[in-house]
Amino acid sequence: MIEIGRRAKVAARAMAGASSAVKDEALAGIARALEEAADAILDANTADLERGESEGLSRALLDRLTLTPERISQIAGAVRDVIALPDPVGEVIGGTRRPNGLDIVEVRVPLGVVAMIYEARPNVTVDAAALCIKSGNACILRGSRTAIESNKALARLIRHAIVEAGLPEDAVQLVEDTSHESVAELMRMRGYVDVLIPRGGADLIRNVVEGASVPVIETGVGNCHVYVDASADVSKAIPIVINAKTHRPSVCNAAESVLVHRAVADDVMPKLLAELAARGVEVRGDDATRAYSDVVVAATDDDYRAEFLDLTISVKVVGSLDEAIEHINAYGTLHTEAIVTEDYGAAQRFAAEVDAACVMINASTRFADGGEFGLGAEIGISTQKLHARGPFALEALTTSKYVVRGSGQVRE
Amino acid sequence: MIEIGRRAKVAARAMAGASSAVKDEALAGIARALEEAADAILDANTADLERGESEGLSRALLDRLTLTPERISQIAGAVRDVIALPDPVGEVIGGTRRPNGLDIVEVRVPLGVVAMIYEARPNVTVDAAALCIKSGNACILRGSRTAIESNKALARLIRHAIVEAGLPEDAVQLVEDTSHESVAELMRMRGYVDVLIPRGGADLIRNVVEGASVPVIETGVGNCHVYVDASADVSKAIPIVINAKTHRPSVCNAAESVLVHRAVADDVMPKLLAELAARGVEVRGDDATRAYSDVVVAATDDDYRAEFLDLTISVKVVGSLDEAIEHINAYGTLHTEAIVTEDYGAAQRFAAEVDAACVMINASTRFADGGEFGLGAEIGISTQKLHARGPFALEALTTSKYVVRGSGQVRE
Repeated sequence: MIEIGRRAKVAARAMAGASSAVKDEALAGIARALEEAADAILDANTADLERGESEGLSRALLDRLTLTPERISQIAGAVRDVIALPDPVGEVIGGTRRPNGLDIVEVRVPLGVVAMIYEARPNVTVDAAALCIKSGNACILRGSRTAIESNKALARLIRHAIVEAGLPEDAVQLVEDTSHESVAELMRMRGYVDVLIPRGGADLIRNVVEGASVPVIETGVGNCHVYVDASADVSKAIPIVINAKTHRPSVCNAAESVLVHRAVADDVMPKLLAELAARGVEVRGDDATRAYSDVVVAATDDDYRAEFLDLTISVKVVGSLDEAIEHINAYGTLHTEAIVTEDYGAAQRFAAEVDAACVMINASTRFADGGEFGLGAEIGISTQKLHARGPFALEALTTSKYVVRGSGQVRE
Repeated sequence: MIEIGRRAKVAARAMAGASSAVKDEALAGIARALEEAADAILDANTADLERGESEGLSRALLDRLTLTPERISQIAGAVRDVIALPDPVGEVIGGTRRPNGLDIVEVRVPLGVVAMIYEARPNVTVDAAALCIKSGNACILRGSRTAIESNKALARLIRHAIVEAGLPEDAVQLVEDTSHESVAELMRMRGYVDVLIPRGGADLIRNVVEGASVPVIETGVGNCHVYVDASADVSKAIPIVINAKTHRPSVCNAAESVLVHRAVADDVMPKLLAELAARGVEVRGDDATRAYSDVVVAATDDDYRAEFLDLTISVKVVGSLDEAIEHINAYGTLHTEAIVTEDYGAAQRFAAEVDAACVMINASTRFADGGEFGLGAEIGISTQKLHARGPFALEALTTSKYVVRGSGQVRE
């Protein structure tokens, strides 16, 4: 693994100096190769799927693992979208001339070596490589064992395309060792890895955050709430809750919990619980919620902490905006929190006082997404506060450097 | 310690909503109180100094620990400088209206709870508190045992002043337990501490980086080089090296190593070695350097890695700009690196290819400093690449939050 780190570091130096034109040429080559080599990729993917089925992977996991000709051309399309984004490297962020004549310029530069640990989906291999190439970084990709054949096929094609464009092969390296040890080594590679981005389930992320000695951007765990305020327009509230919960329950920006103000509970609850039931959502609620329905299970404290990622939701009746904010700040995961309200003051206070990367006012939590935010791409959603918060992409893969130009100045 | 974290979290919510006027009033109160209570602070400091002397602390440590009436008014002056800085909180960093009508605004918000672990100097207690107050954060300050009485006196006065201004007392908390356990607990306080900033020696920083589960901004270790290029103007090179090494040898932006291009070694070395010797600097060099002087000790690989923080320097003759860049990227600590050159291309390549927070061209490494960069204050110098790089202050104590305003949008 140290050898992979060493090679990445050498490649990173060349990548930092690569022009936008060359990087875009490499990306165009990758997009082309994806389409041309679709059959070979699908063969490799079939091998993963067959092994996965024989090992009894869940339907959801197999679905995430599956590539089709359509999915491959979507992945190629995403690479072309990255070409269209502006190159962040070299942007002058600020600068000043000091009284002693020193000219100080702060310029955007690549991070260097970006490592990523991720689960089943093979498209992440291409998305991450494309964003790292565009931002002038070398990357080390550690995908999961379930997708290893697909990932190997994709990495081979990516490495071929970047060499064709004149960039170093080792700018993109796939870690073929999918043991736990390779994760453990990667997260302790100080001096080689400039940032480690774990993308996956809560256990993976906790493991990395607890054990890493390299800087980490934490992503993704989302216990997202929708709070239906006393002044909510019920005709907005119901569709927002239903969309936030059921549009795609397995992702981090899906809602896991609903808080309803007591003043509108009689209006909201019967309709909301009926709609949830109609969509097969299991509801776990407090006593006040259970008064509206016989099928609501009693919620435990753990239910209010849970990221179900499934058709299950916790519901609670609250007495005030303050109680809602306090509950969210106690149980939330700093991801995305929504309020449905027609009250200006409540919207302002919720936006100011809820501690989260994204606050939605009268909109579904599902909009917390790089594409929906217009970033053009996304490497993850940061739930920590350092460096990048919320959906992040190219800019979060850069850092800055101060270049100071003088004429012999010394400090008095 | 968890209780301290809990109180900080409550205070952080009030601080996030505090107006600039109230925060500045608190800072003005602190500056006033420092001057009015100077005698009590000096008494507490005397207690620390007496205990330090009886325990045999080094002269250098005792000096860093010592407060005088002049130093106290400098500290008060630094607080007034922070008042003059613009409040970063509430700044709109960006925003857009999406095709579906969602208005997305990215706004600067405080981090929340900032924890700081630092060594002897009691002024850090005031500087850190002032920057955290201005940026709307609550802070947890864990100073060293050697300064505990001074820190307690300062914290008392700070807490009194912030309460007078209407802010919560627990916005500034001093950890009075100065055992190793309090450091160990602080760095694992996920859910309470949003960022931990260690400021001190290499051992403290390594310890924190290796063991922390909360996000960390790494500061300060500086194995800074001055590279004297083939085209260097010798009349600039000698003063820059002498200034970088001897102006204040105990700080992180002092030079620890000099690389001299072979082409100018005959010109530079005799003069440089004589000047260093005249200032009592011990030189450890390679064979080529030792050919110029009998008193140069043979350098080991460890010498080239060392942050001496003292009147010792490593010297090496290199054959090319490439060799200099490679040496720096292998032995440097990503802090500050200088080149002395009259060659445009060499300056450009050095600035682009050296991996460091600050690159100095024809200027002393000693300029890598918040004050010298015009930031108005400094909480440390970041040697990591995430979030903040180089000298950092108020802005690094903030994060951002996306506020999305809609009218009932759901995702299709």
